[in-house]
Amino acid sequence: MAVSVPKGFLMAGVHCRIKRDRRKHDLSLVVSETPASAAGVYTQNLVYAAPVALDRSRTPSDRIRAVAICSGVANACTGERGLRDAEEMARLAAVACGAEPDQALVLSTGVIGSFLPMDKIGQGISAAAVKLGRSETSLVAAARGMLTTDTIYKVAHRTLTIDGVEIQVTGMAKGAAMMGPNMATMLGLILTDAAIAPQVAQASLSTATQESFNCMSVDGHMSTNDTVLLLANGAAGGKPLAGEGLATFQKALTEVCVDLAKAIAGDGEGATHLITIEVGGCASRETSQEIARTVANSPLVKTALHGADPNWGRIVSAAGYAGVPFDPNGVTLRLNGFLLYQHGTPVEFNGQEVSTSIRDHRDTLIQLDFSEGSASSRFWTADLTAEYVRLNADYHT
Amino acid sequence: MAVSVPKGFLMAGVHCRIKRDRRKHDLSLVVSETPASAAGVYTQNLVYAAPVALDRSRTPSDRIRAVAICSGVANACTGERGLRDAEEMARLAAVACGAEPDQALVLSTGVIGSFLPMDKIGQGISAAAVKLGRSETSLVAAARGMLTTDTIYKVAHRTLTIDGVEIQVTGMAKGAAMMGPNMATMLGLILTDAAIAPQVAQASLSTATQESFNCMSVDGHMSTNDTVLLLANGAAGGKPLAGEGLATFQKALTEVCVDLAKAIAGDGEGATHLITIEVGGCASRETSQEIARTVANSPLVKTALHGADPNWGRIVSAAGYAGVPFDPNGVTLRLNGFLLYQHGTPVEFNGQEVSTSIRDHRDTLIQLDFSEGSASSRFWTADLTAEYVRLNADYHT
Repeated sequence: MAVSVPKGFLMAGVHCRIKRDRRKHDLSLVVSETPASAAGVYTQNLVYAAPVALDRSRTPSDRIRAVAICSGVANACTGERGLRDAEEMARLAAVACGAEPDQALVLSTGVIGSFLPMDKIGQGISAAAVKLGRSETSLVAAARGMLTTDTIYKVAHRTLTIDGVEIQVTGMAKGAAMMGPNMATMLGLILTDAAIAPQVAQASLSTATQESFNCMSVDGHMSTNDTVLLLANGAAGGKPLAGEGLATFQKALTEVCVDLAKAIAGDGEGATHLITIEVGGCASRETSQEIARTVANSPLVKTALHGADPNWGRIVSAAGYAGVPFDPNGVTLRLNGFLLYQHGTPVEFNGQEVSTSIRDHRDTLIQLDFSEGSASSRFWTADLTAEYVRLNADYHT
Repeated sequence: MAVSVPKGFLMAGVHCRIKRDRRKHDLSLVVSETPASAAGVYTQNLVYAAPVALDRSRTPSDRIRAVAICSGVANACTGERGLRDAEEMARLAAVACGAEPDQALVLSTGVIGSFLPMDKIGQGISAAAVKLGRSETSLVAAARGMLTTDTIYKVAHRTLTIDGVEIQVTGMAKGAAMMGPNMATMLGLILTDAAIAPQVAQASLSTATQESFNCMSVDGHMSTNDTVLLLANGAAGGKPLAGEGLATFQKALTEVCVDLAKAIAGDGEGATHLITIEVGGCASRETSQEIARTVANSPLVKTALHGADPNWGRIVSAAGYAGVPFDPNGVTLRLNGFLLYQHGTPVEFNGQEVSTSIRDHRDTLIQLDFSEGSASSRFWTADLTAEYVRLNADYHT
């Protein structure tokens, strides 16, 4: 589908020699023609990167004009100098679009413990500033500028009409978790031309993230740089969203985030399967999510599915150590729709048939049901392959 | 070193056709000539196997005479029939040594969801009963009978003298976590000819396990069958242990368990490194252990070390999401003795030199220090290799 850029936004992605491969973009600049409401959701890691510290201190905001993104260096574990570099990077981006130094946010991903090459970043921001555009080509260039070991760029888009006003919601993201050699991070940037008050934008983004990026993992290693930003510049016109209109927007925002989260999990390093885990019949959404996360992060479950092995014992036993109380005799498991385990008892099934269904489909569906209540949740992850090990065991220091 | 069997114990290991490979033992029988105090520590998995249910109900005890062990089938997720099979297996072992049906315990490891081949197990117990011996050969045969995908059998031994009485503590164990294709479990059996009251034995085993098997992981997947048993038959003579004598015994018992835990981690499936993680300067032993466990279970840390990559960012960031509060500026990291990160700041180091030290040693030492207090702990794990993925992705259903 065609992905369009919301009104009032301009963007570009360029190569500024942070990455060795000159064909790869490593710096993106996104500009709002008018001050935008900005919200952010950040890593919970105690060891968080300088860009996270800066953006945290500037969101929510009602006056953000630019976001500068660099890939290749995470600016994490870089102390005071890292904070000064992040501020300077933001200042350069703001100046490039005629805004005040503090009207910009920054995103960085890449090597931990290295300082930003400020000269290259300055040149990159200047180069991007003269290339700013609103075409899908500009969007894709910006989306490519945030990638590290991702194999494909990730964008998602929804168009909706609220009170007769057409609104665009467009998101871009990059690889989840700490996937590459020394690489950190999942980054997400959602743009909309809807009018939303900063605090409302913050609440909407938090809700959408809870249903999407927080329901996704690749290797379970929480990075130092995880950040999702939402910019809403109101360029579409109309009153600030509230009530029913806000609910409509929330639904679209969540859908965009879910699309991006699934794209990230499906592009997990070395992944050959996008695994969706649906957990139902739980006492609370939190417990259902904890079980789903535990199953998703089990190397044995991930390797079994990579091997197209309907190894249900690994799935049921992973649920068993999630730290969530449940009746083992109430557990039912389906894999790609095949019933393998019912009310705590093994079910006769055709292993070859189930194996073939796993091997022949990139999408794999695990459905776990319990007898504790009616709460449920979904979680996405990738399988664990020898390629993941190879990519992450390569010597890069 | 020579490993001797404590007085009053007899054992054997045989092949009874549970495993396809006729060269592999799959059934072991351990007998105490007199009723022994028996203690057990079991998996915390909600989905626990039938043998765990049976042993739990029979320990602590003052009258155990036999332990029957089978490998190849875990008797997990097998419902009522699984419980009956476990009881029958125990009965056969008890009868084989002239004891009452309820004077035996059982250990099983292997495929989840399959029922025990009771005919083969009956024949195996009979075959083992006529082979019972007290030589090191018998000990090794019994230790081999509990293996699944382990590449080497694991035994440990200490001799100590308490009040002039020589006491033997001898342990055997098998592969940690859920390591093999469909295989479950870490199993441990510790034998001693010391005289110990059941409740005291239970307390001693719990303490030793806390310092050893609970400080070790391979893939972080808690199995349905994990069990460690301690049998103390008092054949060495002397009064039941108490006070200083008990403390001396506790030290030896913990040492035996640590030897076995390290052997298990070092023999992790596909492992090329035994990784020891020492975490210090924490507010409590629990928090230090939580940080160590989180670092140990990070696929990125495990793959980096497999690749001899001194990728300290992965280690520091893993500590950051352990859920334990600490001052990031108080973190110091050493890898194989090399200082890589000090008080939250990167340290210049020779990457090639550190990489070579990792590549050239099977033992790898991670030392993380914090500024929160004086509590510390150790944790052992294995690296993550493509071989681990290959072994676990192979189709086996």
